[in-house]
Amino acid sequence: MRAGKGCPLISMQPENREITSRDNPTYRYIRTLHDRKTAMSEGLVFIEGVRLCEDALISGMRPRYIVSSSERKALASLWCERFDVCQSASYYQFAEPLFAKLGSTKNPQGIALVIEAPDYATSIPSRGRDLYLILESVADPGNLGTIIRTADAFDFTAVILSGDSTDPYGEKAMRASMGSCFHIPIVSIPDISEVCMLLEQNGVQLIASDLRGDSLNSATIQLPCAVVIGNEARGITDTCANLCHYRVKIPMPGKAESLNASSAASVLAYEMMIRRDRTIHE
Amino acid sequence: MRAGKGCPLISMQPENREITSRDNPTYRYIRTLHDRKTAMSEGLVFIEGVRLCEDALISGMRPRYIVSSSERKALASLWCERFDVCQSASYYQFAEPLFAKLGSTKNPQGIALVIEAPDYATSIPSRGRDLYLILESVADPGNLGTIIRTADAFDFTAVILSGDSTDPYGEKAMRASMGSCFHIPIVSIPDISEVCMLLEQNGVQLIASDLRGDSLNSATIQLPCAVVIGNEARGITDTCANLCHYRVKIPMPGKAESLNASSAASVLAYEMMIRRDRTIHE
Repeated sequence: MRAGKGCPLISMQPENREITSRDNPTYRYIRTLHDRKTAMSEGLVFIEGVRLCEDALISGMRPRYIVSSSERKALASLWCERFDVCQSASYYQFAEPLFAKLGSTKNPQGIALVIEAPDYATSIPSRGRDLYLILESVADPGNLGTIIRTADAFDFTAVILSGDSTDPYGEKAMRASMGSCFHIPIVSIPDISEVCMLLEQNGVQLIASDLRGDSLNSATIQLPCAVVIGNEARGITDTCANLCHYRVKIPMPGKAESLNASSAASVLAYEMMIRRDRTIHE
Repeated sequence: MRAGKGCPLISMQPENREITSRDNPTYRYIRTLHDRKTAMSEGLVFIEGVRLCEDALISGMRPRYIVSSSERKALASLWCERFDVCQSASYYQFAEPLFAKLGSTKNPQGIALVIEAPDYATSIPSRGRDLYLILESVADPGNLGTIIRTADAFDFTAVILSGDSTDPYGEKAMRASMGSCFHIPIVSIPDISEVCMLLEQNGVQLIASDLRGDSLNSATIQLPCAVVIGNEARGITDTCANLCHYRVKIPMPGKAESLNASSAASVLAYEMMIRRDRTIHE
């Protein structure tokens, strides 16, 4: 540990300063941040669990508070040593029963962060041979997180949230993304027309996943390329359908009439990646 | 409505026989069936919601009880008229506040069924050019249901549950499967060695989804074919890895180290379907 460098673990929280009262104002404040609306209004995100917290720190997210149960003090100490972004954070240690009621996980791992909310990108990044996933009003946080994870795994340039897509930094979405929400740029542009216009100006082919579309096999995917995944119940809007170059349907010869939104996104994203990476495809 | 044919709606439940007391023994009994362990021990499955119930009836599932709120009586009546399998069911009408506490959905649709638990197939069906998805200890009910939905959409011959995979007729799994759990044969053979042996005897190529495997692109998929999806945290067992002909990894050039189990299943199932259906692939 870099003593004297303002490490919050040393400066703020001597061994014996464990917080044991539910009425402690800091405990009460941090506990309110578990509610996304409150956290949002403060420009903060509450993250719980070893893996997700480490992913956030590795990705350069800046914690305002590091909190742990008494048992996890050593891990918090290790993070302060390892990650420069921890230098300006405040550290608080809570007694086990208090920590257990901080978040909503059934078996809490005894460690959490309150980070400054990542800024959404307002312009769409480009790096050549780009692939984008556009989510138009994807409502289920599990789907949203899973799709962000898939886009990250397949090295997409960005995920673009449009319409009234759900919050990627909500608890369920973050858990489903397995940290990918901190790896891949997330752009938020609510107006789908604006998204399509910006991408078209940059020569990006626009493909919509649409049950009314032509078979995926008949579409010629060209790079750069973006695919739109619509709302789970309603699909893409007509506005979006009209602005896209292709509307494609994944062939479904069985009885199910549709795929789960994140399943459809996985298949389409995989197909796009295969084209980009020029992998020999039987 | 076929009056006089023993339709339970007529024989059991005149208009004025709405149940209004929480202490009514039938209400109390049906309410216990919402708990999967209790329902399983009775050989029953509790299903809630218009879409899922209709899917079950269309697929020939036999209801023991049809229950509705007062407002949904007409729909229950329609089902009794439309589906022969309803003829031997008992119908009960519950007052709104009672129905609201029957299941666990936040906005109940006022209709539910208690069906006889579908028998798991004990032998693996075959119809030629077969594709199978084998789930080895898939634990998350959302993943399990989503994978069943994908296998159904891509017209797989069966889904095979092995290891200690979760219950496909639990509430979350059924909801994620969107009725596909009633469309596609579900085989349960806990011993993965037995699954592999039975399939190999029938000349089925066995492919495991495995992060330690070779790239999916280097594998030659031949029909009939089965792909194994392992546990979300641990992947496939070594026993399974040793019994499979190929271990394949979906290429992931990005930062995420793995895909969600149902995302991986979607990509692999899609690739297998494309081979089966000889679709021209770029």
